[in-house]
Amino acid sequence: MRELNQRLVLERLRKGGAATRPQLAGDTGLSKPTVGQALLDLERHGLVRAAGHSLPGPGRAAVLYRATPDAGHVVGVDIGRRAIRIAVADLEGSIVARLDEPNRCRSAGALVRSVGASAARAVAEAGLSPADVVSTVVGTPGIPDPRTGTVHRAPNLPGWERRGLLHDLRAALGPLGADLVVENDANLTAVGEHALGAALGVDVLVCLTVGTGIGLGVLIGGKLFRGASGAAGEIADLPYGRHPARARRPGPMEDAAAGHAVVAAAQARGLTVRTAKDVFARARAGDPAALEVVEQEAVKLAYVVASVTAVLDPGLIVLGGGIGGNADLLAGPLRRALAATTPFAPELVAGQLGEDAVLAGAIATALDTAREVVFDRREQRRAARGA
Amino acid sequence: MRELNQRLVLERLRKGGAATRPQLAGDTGLSKPTVGQALLDLERHGLVRAAGHSLPGPGRAAVLYRATPDAGHVVGVDIGRRAIRIAVADLEGSIVARLDEPNRCRSAGALVRSVGASAARAVAEAGLSPADVVSTVVGTPGIPDPRTGTVHRAPNLPGWERRGLLHDLRAALGPLGADLVVENDANLTAVGEHALGAALGVDVLVCLTVGTGIGLGVLIGGKLFRGASGAAGEIADLPYGRHPARARRPGPMEDAAAGHAVVAAAQARGLTVRTAKDVFARARAGDPAALEVVEQEAVKLAYVVASVTAVLDPGLIVLGGGIGGNADLLAGPLRRALAATTPFAPELVAGQLGEDAVLAGAIATALDTAREVVFDRREQRRAARGA
Repeated sequence: MRELNQRLVLERLRKGGAATRPQLAGDTGLSKPTVGQALLDLERHGLVRAAGHSLPGPGRAAVLYRATPDAGHVVGVDIGRRAIRIAVADLEGSIVARLDEPNRCRSAGALVRSVGASAARAVAEAGLSPADVVSTVVGTPGIPDPRTGTVHRAPNLPGWERRGLLHDLRAALGPLGADLVVENDANLTAVGEHALGAALGVDVLVCLTVGTGIGLGVLIGGKLFRGASGAAGEIADLPYGRHPARARRPGPMEDAAAGHAVVAAAQARGLTVRTAKDVFARARAGDPAALEVVEQEAVKLAYVVASVTAVLDPGLIVLGGGIGGNADLLAGPLRRALAATTPFAPELVAGQLGEDAVLAGAIATALDTAREVVFDRREQRRAARGA
Repeated sequence: MRELNQRLVLERLRKGGAATRPQLAGDTGLSKPTVGQALLDLERHGLVRAAGHSLPGPGRAAVLYRATPDAGHVVGVDIGRRAIRIAVADLEGSIVARLDEPNRCRSAGALVRSVGASAARAVAEAGLSPADVVSTVVGTPGIPDPRTGTVHRAPNLPGWERRGLLHDLRAALGPLGADLVVENDANLTAVGEHALGAALGVDVLVCLTVGTGIGLGVLIGGKLFRGASGAAGEIADLPYGRHPARARRPGPMEDAAAGHAVVAAAQARGLTVRTAKDVFARARAGDPAALEVVEQEAVKLAYVVASVTAVLDPGLIVLGGGIGGNADLLAGPLRRALAATTPFAPELVAGQLGEDAVLAGAIATALDTAREVVFDRREQRRAARGA
């Protein structure tokens, strides 16, 4: 009971900000003496501290309490084909260190080592020791299988589908990998846009990310929907064309609509471009050939959206990723193509987190765990001292 | 509190069958005197009655109580292109009247009148008056919109998309239509197979029905998933072929894979058949041309299953409907086509309710409502008497 009261008070302070004892009693429904005892316990655990006094008004000024943001920290990692992004945050989600590096690794082993070293460096730059980190969440392309420690369907990272790769990643992260969670990057994008971005609080959310690969994150009732094998939203494998010959790597839809296809289409039109980003820059500058490529890409994405809509009827789709993020150019032709084919076309909006979406989702996921873990750890220490 | 205890005891009797007072106390966690009072109240409302004694054993034989199954009745209706099916059931779900009629109506008006007259007849045949019916649920092709009273995307029933059609249907059902619920037929198939059939208790269930039309019912966490506009599972509109020209009625996938397409493919091979049923009968008898048509149909359904899997990764798909129900012939080639294209192919099973699946779903849905309504009505009557 005493622990439950502490949780109630702590939760209220984290969600609603600093508050006095009477405010906490009013908000939680607990009696003032019970709130007082809970605050005493939480202060002793280092989870809450006094932070000044309430504004003067009728009656005496009361002590303001707030949750201690640095009672623990979390690490979020985004492993992408082009870059490794790392952030360290406190329990309020404030970023205390940030590290972006180009991914030049040519093997899975090199990439695993690079992620381990960079994460350790980010934690050190934040002035923390690894023991201060209570939760680490990594986003990756493909379908991480925690049972076998293997990532499936990640053809864009060389060697990344190697059996047991996630065990190596955990080992490379050292103490930061103790309770490692690895999640699909499109899923984390959806979590990020839901927590902080374009889809704040939406009940059924579909986030379509198009870049080097193509993926879909699905949230239902505010929770990640992963499907039976963790493969929900693996629309790289969406059939495209009437008679798909056989399982391809990458899948048929990824082959048709992701980065390579955009660059190839542009080059076939005589444009000298190296990346999809170049193509969109040219289109934005008014190059007619580049605009044609963008239009063609929008029609393919309309095919994806129409398929997803026929199954899920999501109402709202957030566009993200290096290609999908160009909603200024894509949304118009995409809507036109949908209007011609789909009776119940969803609203399309641009993601608001840009290249940070996966990282934001990783941090949000890590915070959910960390807040529980920090509380439990302090409780355990208290119990151990009492014994 | 007293009402809550009554609900607990009644729920236990409905789900677990007849029981004695001590058994009810053990199962609900209520005290024996509290259970005694609740039974007294429920008997007075006609919701529970004594039904003999427990088997002799150590101690005295105790009175057995059971929920009164005829405290209320429900009506389920399945409006299909070929037939109208109606069932009347008691609160235990036992069917007390059943009526199947060919649908020969050539207009929406005629069909609405026919459904109204047939439902009234079924209730009369059960020896009931319309006032005994506490809930009516109707299954229909298309997307019923309760806000406008209109059914969208139902091209297989002539005139059925007429604005306000559901208001006419309610009027035609008279007192049976008072609290009418109208639900998509594929959705009800999924509810039926989940409640009674091939997918008992499965958490994420996808039910693919192929017949005159093509549809998908999706249950997530045991509940119908309808999407933002009620159009989740409207896979008639799944794009098929790289560049779908425009919104078609029926949708492109329905056009390619439902009844008409199967018959046309068979006729193109020189088979003299009139219905898809004929084609499957010929295939079952070993006719090579019919077997080819079935194989071709399986490849199209594999396309649907692959698309649904790329979005939802359901793990299990139940096949139903006049065409989908031929799982003995379809499942083999379907699995082969999937193995070649889909990395995470779901398990495929045949629906167990056959042509009764929609009706079973309608009855199951109506029972959920009815059990609440019956309880509330009796409570209101009691309150009115007390006033």
